[in-house]
Amino acid sequence: MKIDVLTYNEHIDTEAFRSKTAVVIDVLRCTSVMATALSNHASRIIPVLEPEDAFRLADFIGRDSCVIGGERGCNKVPGFDFGNSPLEYTEDAVKGKTVIMSTSNGTAAIGAVRLADTVLIGTIPNSGAVANAAAELGSDVLILCSGTNRKPSADDYCAAGSIIQKLYQIVPDCELSDLALVCVHLFDNLKNGSFDLMKTFHCHRLASLGYGSDIEYCLKDNFLDVVPVYRNGEIKSL
Amino acid sequence: MKIDVLTYNEHIDTEAFRSKTAVVIDVLRCTSVMATALSNHASRIIPVLEPEDAFRLADFIGRDSCVIGGERGCNKVPGFDFGNSPLEYTEDAVKGKTVIMSTSNGTAAIGAVRLADTVLIGTIPNSGAVANAAAELGSDVLILCSGTNRKPSADDYCAAGSIIQKLYQIVPDCELSDLALVCVHLFDNLKNGSFDLMKTFHCHRLASLGYGSDIEYCLKDNFLDVVPVYRNGEIKSL
Repeated sequence: MKIDVLTYNEHIDTEAFRSKTAVVIDVLRCTSVMATALSNHASRIIPVLEPEDAFRLADFIGRDSCVIGGERGCNKVPGFDFGNSPLEYTEDAVKGKTVIMSTSNGTAAIGAVRLADTVLIGTIPNSGAVANAAAELGSDVLILCSGTNRKPSADDYCAAGSIIQKLYQIVPDCELSDLALVCVHLFDNLKNGSFDLMKTFHCHRLASLGYGSDIEYCLKDNFLDVVPVYRNGEIKSL
Repeated sequence: MKIDVLTYNEHIDTEAFRSKTAVVIDVLRCTSVMATALSNHASRIIPVLEPEDAFRLADFIGRDSCVIGGERGCNKVPGFDFGNSPLEYTEDAVKGKTVIMSTSNGTAAIGAVRLADTVLIGTIPNSGAVANAAAELGSDVLILCSGTNRKPSADDYCAAGSIIQKLYQIVPDCELSDLALVCVHLFDNLKNGSFDLMKTFHCHRLASLGYGSDIEYCLKDNFLDVVPVYRNGEIKSL
């Protein structure tokens, strides 16, 4: 099993995902919201590219049976029910509902992996569950970090590392690319405090906008036993 | 001043280098050879893409006034004078001569930065000199890691970190991208022994082919006071 990591941008080679298990990551905060919402028994998540798509879809599904969430510029889009904070997606808020989401980076990245055999949605909180699922699937794993503004984001690298580290424990003869090795190193050092994510642009901005408790939640390792799978336009628990 | 890092592949956005200082890195071993050869008073280095280009150019220049070096599959190309080991490029071997080079990754990457204002050739051994030169130029810095087989290589990330770390000391208000921060972290940990490059594909392969002393040389920090500059198809000392 080969394990590699890419960051999303418009020029990404979608063919690279063919016949693989893709894991899409946007730890701060889109895929953390998705894992949280499904863990709190949302029936499904439908990612859409633009806020207008979200409103149209909500009208079609029926406003009572769905919630609309996501962000632009880190903040809630006017008219959405929720922003991009996983702490908003409580059981009370989402149980039995469809969550329609549009975010700046994460939902765009999901569209790039359509040729993968299986598309898993990963984050640090569900890293163990995703690693187990990927190990069981057995295919090569290509992790797509959503990044920030189409550029690599150190938080996503750490999240990739959280999954790769556990996958490597289950499949010790897997082959890690250099970037996969770097991601594991970063996650180890995030945990032991020697790598400081708060120096990075995205974390710094989120914290300064008052989302510090989201960062704390999203960087907590392996407490959500949920494997969101993207198939036919929607994300459900495995 | 903004500082960012990219890895070369065929889809790279060459426009990203416009109006910037580009630093091309292939620490194992192409740009380490270049810095070493100029430090040992080679008159210039001409990078060419293919071995056939090297032979044609050598015939044109005159075989007595040049040496041909480089590699394919890490080893010397048949008919070349030298391989890709910096230890071969002694003063005796290169003083006053043109060095014609063709390598798998490094010489290809140099072609991608043609829109930059200035193109510097960087490696760990000349990291201080390159950082000083980039600081003096004052433009935004975009470091192009050559990578291995068109994919990120952890050794090149460490080398980028060796330069960024020093540049940051000279220009403390510079703005580091996430990947630039990651590179500095990797270089710090390479030095303190907590990041092990020998686990990576490229280092492991080089060592198993008997090039361990090259690795040791190329990872030694800041002892070559030379700034190779690429201009009009050739590389000379600043």
